[in-house]
Amino acid sequence: MSAKVNQDLLEERKKCDFNVEELTNYLDGSVQATTNRRKLETKVLSTKGLLDDVPEEYLSHKEKYENAVRKAVVLYRALKDAEDPNLTEQEKANVIYRSLINSAVFKDNSPFALHFVMFIPAILGQADEEQKKYWVKRASKMEIIGTYAQTELGHGTFIRGLETTATYDPKTEEFVLHSPTLTAYKWWPGGLAHTANYCVVMAQLYTQGKSCGIQPFLIQLRDEETHMPLPGIKLGEIGAKLGFNTVNNGFLGFENHRIKRDRMLMKNAQVLKDGTFKKSLNSKLTYGTMVYVRVVIVNAMANQLARAVTIAVRYSAVRRQSELKPDAGEPQILDYVTQQHKLFIAIASCHAFSLTAQWLTRMYHKVSSELEKGNMDELPELHASACCLKAVTSWDASAMVERCRTSCGGHGYMLSSNLPQIYGLVTAAVTYEGENTVLMLQTARSLVKAWEQASTGQTLSPTMSYLSEKIGSKQKWDNSVDGIIKGFRRVALGKVGAAVASIKKYMKRGLAPEDAWNMTSVQLVAASEAHCRAFILSTYKSEAERTTSSLSGPLKKVLSQLVELYTIYWALEKLGDLLLYTSISEADVRQLQDTYEELLGKIRPNAVGLVDAFDFCDQILNSTLGASDGRVYERLMEEALKSPLNAEPVNQSFHKYLKPFMQGKL
Amino acid sequence: MSAKVNQDLLEERKKCDFNVEELTNYLDGSVQATTNRRKLETKVLSTKGLLDDVPEEYLSHKEKYENAVRKAVVLYRALKDAEDPNLTEQEKANVIYRSLINSAVFKDNSPFALHFVMFIPAILGQADEEQKKYWVKRASKMEIIGTYAQTELGHGTFIRGLETTATYDPKTEEFVLHSPTLTAYKWWPGGLAHTANYCVVMAQLYTQGKSCGIQPFLIQLRDEETHMPLPGIKLGEIGAKLGFNTVNNGFLGFENHRIKRDRMLMKNAQVLKDGTFKKSLNSKLTYGTMVYVRVVIVNAMANQLARAVTIAVRYSAVRRQSELKPDAGEPQILDYVTQQHKLFIAIASCHAFSLTAQWLTRMYHKVSSELEKGNMDELPELHASACCLKAVTSWDASAMVERCRTSCGGHGYMLSSNLPQIYGLVTAAVTYEGENTVLMLQTARSLVKAWEQASTGQTLSPTMSYLSEKIGSKQKWDNSVDGIIKGFRRVALGKVGAAVASIKKYMKRGLAPEDAWNMTSVQLVAASEAHCRAFILSTYKSEAERTTSSLSGPLKKVLSQLVELYTIYWALEKLGDLLLYTSISEADVRQLQDTYEELLGKIRPNAVGLVDAFDFCDQILNSTLGASDGRVYERLMEEALKSPLNAEPVNQSFHKYLKPFMQGKL
Repeated sequence: MSAKVNQDLLEERKKCDFNVEELTNYLDGSVQATTNRRKLETKVLSTKGLLDDVPEEYLSHKEKYENAVRKAVVLYRALKDAEDPNLTEQEKANVIYRSLINSAVFKDNSPFALHFVMFIPAILGQADEEQKKYWVKRASKMEIIGTYAQTELGHGTFIRGLETTATYDPKTEEFVLHSPTLTAYKWWPGGLAHTANYCVVMAQLYTQGKSCGIQPFLIQLRDEETHMPLPGIKLGEIGAKLGFNTVNNGFLGFENHRIKRDRMLMKNAQVLKDGTFKKSLNSKLTYGTMVYVRVVIVNAMANQLARAVTIAVRYSAVRRQSELKPDAGEPQILDYVTQQHKLFIAIASCHAFSLTAQWLTRMYHKVSSELEKGNMDELPELHASACCLKAVTSWDASAMVERCRTSCGGHGYMLSSNLPQIYGLVTAAVTYEGENTVLMLQTARSLVKAWEQASTGQTLSPTMSYLSEKIGSKQKWDNSVDGIIKGFRRVALGKVGAAVASIKKYMKRGLAPEDAWNMTSVQLVAASEAHCRAFILSTYKSEAERTTSSLSGPLKKVLSQLVELYTIYWALEKLGDLLLYTSISEADVRQLQDTYEELLGKIRPNAVGLVDAFDFCDQILNSTLGASDGRVYERLMEEALKSPLNAEPVNQSFHKYLKPFMQGKL
Repeated sequence: MSAKVNQDLLEERKKCDFNVEELTNYLDGSVQATTNRRKLETKVLSTKGLLDDVPEEYLSHKEKYENAVRKAVVLYRALKDAEDPNLTEQEKANVIYRSLINSAVFKDNSPFALHFVMFIPAILGQADEEQKKYWVKRASKMEIIGTYAQTELGHGTFIRGLETTATYDPKTEEFVLHSPTLTAYKWWPGGLAHTANYCVVMAQLYTQGKSCGIQPFLIQLRDEETHMPLPGIKLGEIGAKLGFNTVNNGFLGFENHRIKRDRMLMKNAQVLKDGTFKKSLNSKLTYGTMVYVRVVIVNAMANQLARAVTIAVRYSAVRRQSELKPDAGEPQILDYVTQQHKLFIAIASCHAFSLTAQWLTRMYHKVSSELEKGNMDELPELHASACCLKAVTSWDASAMVERCRTSCGGHGYMLSSNLPQIYGLVTAAVTYEGENTVLMLQTARSLVKAWEQASTGQTLSPTMSYLSEKIGSKQKWDNSVDGIIKGFRRVALGKVGAAVASIKKYMKRGLAPEDAWNMTSVQLVAASEAHCRAFILSTYKSEAERTTSSLSGPLKKVLSQLVELYTIYWALEKLGDLLLYTSISEADVRQLQDTYEELLGKIRPNAVGLVDAFDFCDQILNSTLGASDGRVYERLMEEALKSPLNAEPVNQSFHKYLKPFMQGKL
């Protein structure tokens, strides 16, 4: 790798008027956190055999999996070796929170991913003390590899519809696991196909002839010595996907498979030896994990979008094309205002999502500790916030990653740019862990409830308190960031009100409440989005103010420009709503457009600095277009030459097919 | 394959209140055209060895190519064999226009694609009579396989920036082809890597020391016997991509490679023996082909979106999930109004794009025949229309295909659904054949020019004549389809006017005209979009009226519901613009929302019929979720079992890595 850096990138870095390292430290949380993260990344990523010589995309599906298992083992050891024993658990978590080492190794994720993200947490959250002691120990030492199976071929987000049954047989003190239909097959869990030998399975419990709801069971899938599936267990992989192909997603069916009574995870609910079912004290206790996963997703969206926009901004600084002025040479495409419009909002969105995720994490911890004390008052608000935030950030991130990709023209279509793979990762979040539209309607349900509470004079939870404001005439408009945020709240208020009115209208026409809800659901999703936008805008603004006070002046300035850009961008994007519900005038709109164009110009010289500050090393970006040295064209050619098709000047298919064909013999 | 059809789909087909076959005939153009198309499809697709046993996605990159070459040869012969000699050329073209046989065979396209789509047309359009006679004959008989190389590593849409040189040497009467830099390498042409042995290359001509612009050269790349690249020619493939992986896109560099003088295609410009350059009489004559490709793209967007929405609607009729009402069982997800909102607009868009493409094709032929007579008056209008239509339809189709995909939840993420691959095909159109933003700005230039012409009282071309209307007070609003179309024209007028005012404002502030244009370019793209939306809306409305008059009542009714749905959808989507530029009131908006929700309910019972009428056979849909029998879950499992990973219960990686790892030995 040559040390030479592209001249345009060097110039951009000179132009930057804030301290990039200071911003990196801010994003990491502290100077020490940056040091810790870099130390881990450097050490792990230099491990032999961890990174691919031949890019993954040239392997067959089967080879990809086998290579991934090999790398997963190497990565696990490397991470263990690199672990700094002096760090606290919180510090370690911080490092992992910001680092994307997995993305450097797998382009998507590891076949072990669910072992850490779902299997161990499920045992921790749902096993009783004795179970926990035994299984967590084995799982932590990697004596067993586990996964978590909930979704079935026929049911995803609607958990009550799951069909897998676990029927208790008091004679043998066993549960009988069974898949009564094809659609009852578990479908999707990562690592399930050929990697895991244990699994936490969610199944409909039946005991003493009664249905007792969905309960968790820890089930051995494969023989520990031979890895053969146990009798009564059908396993396989679900096939190739848009992304996550190295994750080894699998299916799982049961044919009257028997497990011992102690394999039901019994922290919350229990089945006694005689088959008596003891209900969980609080069925909402398992809620927390689900919410936590959504918090993690919001943060992941910020991180992946940051990767995409780093690639696109650096490429746009290197790429020169067309003419702005005759005979002035080809400008960097980053000088086109349309390109700035595509990219700078993505930078601001990374900050907005990341600060919102931090806020949500704090709320999660607060609500969790209240839950421990038996106080569940804030759980619905946390749930409503997490639902819409997961949905809106995954939608926005998907759209913006694609915008970054297409802003690189045809080269963004190359897998060597890594942009298509990042899209694959991000768009998956639209449908996993709760389908977005379903989640938006859950938030809408809270909003409608809050609206009704407000109308009877009850006090609302903080994130929804604005719903108790009176709807009078149109909100008086002003073009400041605070004015826009107020406007967005007014929009949300107006949309919730309109949706409630629509439900009533349909009921008046004779529809059942559920049908009236369904008829209004497009408006309800829009109301939910408006609420979420208002929430992100105000959280971004207030968290940015709260967390930047000790930063140096130039950095503070550019960060507040991003807040302003983000706010105005969304005001212009949602103009119809603002015009309907506030007194914003045509002159205000012109003024906003003007300020927006001005802001793009102000951010332009700092654009490369802003993405450099995300501090992704080249292995984590894994992109011909985005590497820190800007050797875009050289890398495109170097990567192309790695294609196995380029190993021979003439492919065998010429002799086999093309030659006889052109000679009229085939 | 079982003949059993899913019960829900059967019920849907019973519910449909129009004649599906009649709609298919309408879409094909006539009863006879449907018959012709079906005959061809049935015959070709039953050819042995044409369809894959193991789905393409399980092969390695190299195997995919080799398999594609094999199939391309089989397909070529099958198409020749199936050709009906009784059909006119126009009838043959009609069949190909609607059929997607290629998509059944390759999931994307053939390594021969550019031979037919670009190589032969380039010779036809740019070779002189003698050249044409020799080369078209060889190419048509497939004695040689060609491609077309224009785009380079460093330059795409900006053609003047191409760096490849062709320098005439009068001493030997040869051109010397050279790639002076890495960025001068040709990059992207399909079939170029290992398939083609000839190529039309666009290069900067130099003769007698002068630069003479970009000219076409027909260049032999490989030895016809051995297929080895000729001396001075560097060939290879550009690597894996988001899609089109069987198309064999390649790179091409020249090292002072010499070709005879008669290899310059000399229909338009010539170089005489002594090196004298004779200019083309009209440099705009080659414009036509570029426009034609964009017409073809608009049609392709309609076809591919039709595939995606067929899959999503059928799946939504089969998939049952969650509860609308307690104890009423799980509804078909197509009964959720949010799902109808996601999908029905996609059906309407297929019709809108298809009718617009037909209008554009007619205009293209009209302008072409005028061109033959030397009349170029309508060329700028055709160009401006084709630019924005290519951009807007590819953007819309991309967004809607993804909407169809995510509306299928997690299963849409499976490659066996074919939705990810359709997205790969459609999104490619955003950046190829003219990057969308660049194209939108070209249309904007025409709009600004028309605006200025109008202000000096000149008559405008028909598609822009509305720009000469006076901007007085806000347009008086009415909620009819025609009223909405008028409103959209008013928006376009307002946006062009605002953009012109903005340019003037920036110039007043001291900016050069080019910089003022650049500063306004975000608004200019928006103005271009507004113009294009108004154009599609009015064309869809008028063409639907014109072409449906002889159809039966029920079909006419459902088609006009689609027109209304499409119009209202976009009115609600672009509400901000309408509120700014027309007198639309909050009550109007409520009314539109109400009508929209009503329309979804009216279209619901005909939804499956509407997608059945696109008449894609199962091989062309190539989707587990979209097959006509609705055996969604069975097919998902059947396809999964085809994964080579499922051939063995225990993968070798267990013995090699997992077992020693879990035992602590690795």
